[in-house]
Amino acid sequence: RTTYHIAVIKGDGIGPEIVTEAMKILHLAGEKFGFLCQFHEVLAGGCAIEATGQALPEETLEACLASDSVLLGAVGGPQWDTLPGEKRPERALLGLRSGLDLFTNLRPAYLQPALAHACPLKPEIVGEGMDILIVRELTGGIYFGKRGRTKVNGAPAAFDTECYSVPEIQRICRVAFESARKRRGHVTSVDKANVLESSRLWRTVFHEIAREYPDVTADDMFIDNAAMQLVHNPAQFDVIVTTNMFGDILSDEASMLTGSIGMLPSASLGATRLGMYEPVHGSAPDIAGKGLANPLATIASAAMMLRYSLDQPAAADAVDRAIAAALADGWRTADIADASTPEEKILSTVQMGEAVASLL
Amino acid sequence: RTTYHIAVIKGDGIGPEIVTEAMKILHLAGEKFGFLCQFHEVLAGGCAIEATGQALPEETLEACLASDSVLLGAVGGPQWDTLPGEKRPERALLGLRSGLDLFTNLRPAYLQPALAHACPLKPEIVGEGMDILIVRELTGGIYFGKRGRTKVNGAPAAFDTECYSVPEIQRICRVAFESARKRRGHVTSVDKANVLESSRLWRTVFHEIAREYPDVTADDMFIDNAAMQLVHNPAQFDVIVTTNMFGDILSDEASMLTGSIGMLPSASLGATRLGMYEPVHGSAPDIAGKGLANPLATIASAAMMLRYSLDQPAAADAVDRAIAAALADGWRTADIADASTPEEKILSTVQMGEAVASLL
Ligand SMILES: CC(C)[C@H](C(=O)O)[C@@H](O)C(=O)O
Ligand SMILES: CC(C)[C@H](C(=O)O)[C@@H](O)C(=O)O
Repeated sequence: RTTYHIAVIKGDGIGPEIVTEAMKILHLAGEKFGFLCQFHEVLAGGCAIEATGQALPEETLEACLASDSVLLGAVGGPQWDTLPGEKRPERALLGLRSGLDLFTNLRPAYLQPALAHACPLKPEIVGEGMDILIVRELTGGIYFGKRGRTKVNGAPAAFDTECYSVPEIQRICRVAFESARKRRGHVTSVDKANVLESSRLWRTVFHEIAREYPDVTADDMFIDNAAMQLVHNPAQFDVIVTTNMFGDILSDEASMLTGSIGMLPSASLGATRLGMYEPVHGSAPDIAGKGLANPLATIASAAMMLRYSLDQPAAADAVDRAIAAALADGWRTADIADASTPEEKILSTVQMGEAVASLL
Repeated sequence: RTTYHIAVIKGDGIGPEIVTEAMKILHLAGEKFGFLCQFHEVLAGGCAIEATGQALPEETLEACLASDSVLLGAVGGPQWDTLPGEKRPERALLGLRSGLDLFTNLRPAYLQPALAHACPLKPEIVGEGMDILIVRELTGGIYFGKRGRTKVNGAPAAFDTECYSVPEIQRICRVAFESARKRRGHVTSVDKANVLESSRLWRTVFHEIAREYPDVTADDMFIDNAAMQLVHNPAQFDVIVTTNMFGDILSDEASMLTGSIGMLPSASLGATRLGMYEPVHGSAPDIAGKGLANPLATIASAAMMLRYSLDQPAAADAVDRAIAAALADGWRTADIADASTPEEKILSTVQMGEAVASLL
């Protein structure tokens, strides 16, 4: 059997609980579809700070680089909130993204039919539903530009630099167009070209790449308008491609619009097969260790791993179908339950993992 | 009678129609409250490009500087969309903001009780309603930092610089705390301190200023979380203070959440009484000249002018009450009408101006 080496970063808060369920599903998918996942647990985030003094120990980065793929739970928690910015658990994420050269972040914001009631928007606004893929640039822009302290008119000041080069813009735009071809054939580039020079370059390069994909509709939008349009008419979007910073904002807004942020997976990809897969939600320290966390976003992230890194599309489809089936059968974790959910349908983290497994 | 000199920039699209109604209301308010508004019309935006080749002619800036206050409609339109970034009508806005040193942008996002049905959020999400004041820094940050073209690894690239100095942060934070004292006593600062150095400085200075206002609750939030929380639970916010770029995004998202962007005013203020007042919505070229535009946001902006620049709070209250009364009486322009609005209650731009005037 093909063996995949998967680096596992359980992380902080609910991370260990949800990742454990996703590992079980990957294991089971392997049994059904004839492959083997070998898991290598490594430390990053708050637990790594406690154990080693560093959010991203060198061994962790090396283990990830040597793996076929990385599965991550979540990092961070209140006990590290007082640390200075460069020492916080979240720095591990930035270090992994740049260290593994994961320049693409795919964040689907999808309204699960079974959970449509959780959407905060009125039904007449959502209309035909919402199924947006946000393609966020992940290793450039103001996240990784030059920054520091300076003086302005003698007063202390601080600066950060948003910078994009043509090749950086080209490669992320290509990912967006390729993704759109497999979806509804529409890419919207989001920028602030009426103000930013980097956005003007972004917009020009986007339209150049668009010419390579005449079968895909390409348009652009200012970030302020995009933040409005997501609320006003989310069905107008198929694929959104944007910068690291704007993608951070829009993908969180879009994920909240699904009403079920506990359901949303993400994939971070580079030029090779190696990718990093993690839920969009955070480490939720308030419910950690209580068996209350929803493992579905992490299981869906594992499905993305099967699809994008391990080349097991049939297994990926099977996992996605099992998640949808568990929801259709009425199974809920507390975060996605509502007043109409019968008591006996509300599952713990482990039980939800088992429900998906039994339907796989 | 006190005479106020008001520079008027009607601008493009629906600008002339909506500003004309606001001028009538200012005139009438003067008659009732014993002051005189003398209007000086000047050009900016697309119409100025046509007339002078420049979006912001020198005479316009000078006339504004010499006035007690500036009333602006809207600038921009498709005929200028192909111009390079630095030549577009919107540059006039940036030139006016920095030329008049208007470092504060006040954008109230308020759900008019009479229009609560227009909110795209479900009633159970909006809960107690939504009444947020966004205090956006307006003359700093990445809007005005160093920008240009460069090379990265030999490839063409473009950059922009986000930069904030301590005094810039201090003064905008003070505006936020002063505003909160007159409201519900709560300020949320929005930044991205887990990534940006300028945000870390912003956050530190914000909390220093907070100590001067022990009666006001101060907390902070990351921009991605704020974009989510606006959709998830808008009632948690009173005053939001943030940078130029984040304020652009959040204020547009928040204004769309009221469902009535045609209703929302804004004020841009500096250290003196001179301010610039304009609706949040744009120039809506598609409905220009048809008498369909909603003048209420511009009239509400005139009310803000009475309050903040002309020191006529009684007149400001009267105008705000007249707007609310016109809505309570069921008068609507097309953009805020719905299926239940009787035909005879749907007014043109001029008629809506007259409705407000008759209730003043
Ligand atoms: C934790 C933080 C640095 C990170 C980001 O801004 O990228 C997070 O918000 C995300 O979107 O994954
Ligand atoms: C037109 C544009 C430059 C402007 C801005 O980004 O400030 C607009 O979006 C606004 O918010 O007034």
